[in-house]
Amino acid sequence: MRPDADTKLITSPANPLIKRINALHEKKFRVREGLFLAEGLRIVTEAADAGVTPAYLIHGPDMSDHVLLRRLMAATRAAGGEVVETSADVLRKLSRKYNPQSVLGVYTEPARTLADLDRTASFAWIVCQSLKDPGNLGTILRTADAVGAGGVILLDQSCDPYSVEAVRASMGALFTVPVVQAEWADFLPWLRGGPGFLVGASLNASEDYQAIRYPAPTFLFMGNEQSGLPADYEAACDARIRIPMQGKADSLNVAVATAVLLYEVFNQHRRADR
Amino acid sequence: MRPDADTKLITSPANPLIKRINALHEKKFRVREGLFLAEGLRIVTEAADAGVTPAYLIHGPDMSDHVLLRRLMAATRAAGGEVVETSADVLRKLSRKYNPQSVLGVYTEPARTLADLDRTASFAWIVCQSLKDPGNLGTILRTADAVGAGGVILLDQSCDPYSVEAVRASMGALFTVPVVQAEWADFLPWLRGGPGFLVGASLNASEDYQAIRYPAPTFLFMGNEQSGLPADYEAACDARIRIPMQGKADSLNVAVATAVLLYEVFNQHRRADR
Repeated sequence: MRPDADTKLITSPANPLIKRINALHEKKFRVREGLFLAEGLRIVTEAADAGVTPAYLIHGPDMSDHVLLRRLMAATRAAGGEVVETSADVLRKLSRKYNPQSVLGVYTEPARTLADLDRTASFAWIVCQSLKDPGNLGTILRTADAVGAGGVILLDQSCDPYSVEAVRASMGALFTVPVVQAEWADFLPWLRGGPGFLVGASLNASEDYQAIRYPAPTFLFMGNEQSGLPADYEAACDARIRIPMQGKADSLNVAVATAVLLYEVFNQHRRADR
Repeated sequence: MRPDADTKLITSPANPLIKRINALHEKKFRVREGLFLAEGLRIVTEAADAGVTPAYLIHGPDMSDHVLLRRLMAATRAAGGEVVETSADVLRKLSRKYNPQSVLGVYTEPARTLADLDRTASFAWIVCQSLKDPGNLGTILRTADAVGAGGVILLDQSCDPYSVEAVRASMGALFTVPVVQAEWADFLPWLRGGPGFLVGASLNASEDYQAIRYPAPTFLFMGNEQSGLPADYEAACDARIRIPMQGKADSLNVAVATAVLLYEVFNQHRRADR
């Protein structure tokens, strides 16, 4: 006897819905469908805690008694989403792993623009220019969530925040931290249309990151992993700062550099609050 | 005419040396051979700058005029290593990528133990317990290099610092930052046999990481990605600290947390130097 009559059972990898979901590993299908994939009970639970339920909640066999999953099933249905039970084989296909997560969520991509952001909602925002690595982006989102940053603005040809890798590295922060994709030509006029202190991270800057005060809202501006910020982008900043280093390689991972800077801004902010 | 008479030309994927090198993607063969792989001209150059030359320097076709490569070839030979030119196909096989790096180095694994470390050589050391992700380890090595930390001590069942992923994420820092693998049962007596302030990072700690002073040498103790430090490890620390968070997920990537803490220790250290 099926334990849950409202759950659709799909075990064929050739099922059209399964094929559609599987295609979401590729950006062009994510864009076409306006949907993206998140893997794992933990991330799907974090999303639900943030008030975001999936369009499709997919789970493996023999899980209908799982308390956390039952709650997710109810929340998904209450919001008009569909619950699908599938086989371990199909889960392997969808997650591209031999030992797949037993829960997947298929979510609607939020259609946010700069105009949707309330810049006064937080003391800090992160702006990334041509960020290439989705793991770095996910890690930056996670740090942004931790300090209560307002959101992440991705400029120019940055990686897709809705890739499986970015969602995974964000550990659910993609659902709590607003992300906007924009072009530099649109971002700068938007920024200058209101309060906002734009601080560029640069290996060439002479100012130590702890030597300046960061007014709210501060926009931390991080450049591409290989080449940093373009010179004209740096020139448009209100300040340029560097993280001191005394090593042989003289570079930090961009997600690490973002965290070091963001925690300085956060620390100044929380000291001011005392 | 061959441009470099001392260079061995190997274009067969079935060549025994190529097969041996290819096997270094697997830990058991790295351990058996005492060798590991580093990919890319940048990392191999960083290694050479740090005084480490490969046992085998492998490069693709049509590169003999590359100035940086010629210098690496000379340095490799001067140290008794061998230079091998190979085909794009073999490089693809060795790097497991369709667009492979054009230079690979095969290096001898250093056999370092705790007894080899001079704890007074730096103000800060990093100790990782059951660190699982080689990308996190590489990123931690890179940050350790940036602040001039003494080295990274890997406890218990941590990931292999000589995996291709860890070497890649370290961006060459694996060659500048000493790494030692040890067991907790050996580490603690070694630590207590000399100066050393052991600080555990913990979500349960009440002390803010900026509220304490870090004497040199400080040993920053980071737990496993999922579960943090075991309770008895935490209990053995001289202090337990937490990084303040106000997000929904209440966690940071372990490489990010290490960087935030390490920069606090570094900032205190450089302020004391002024």
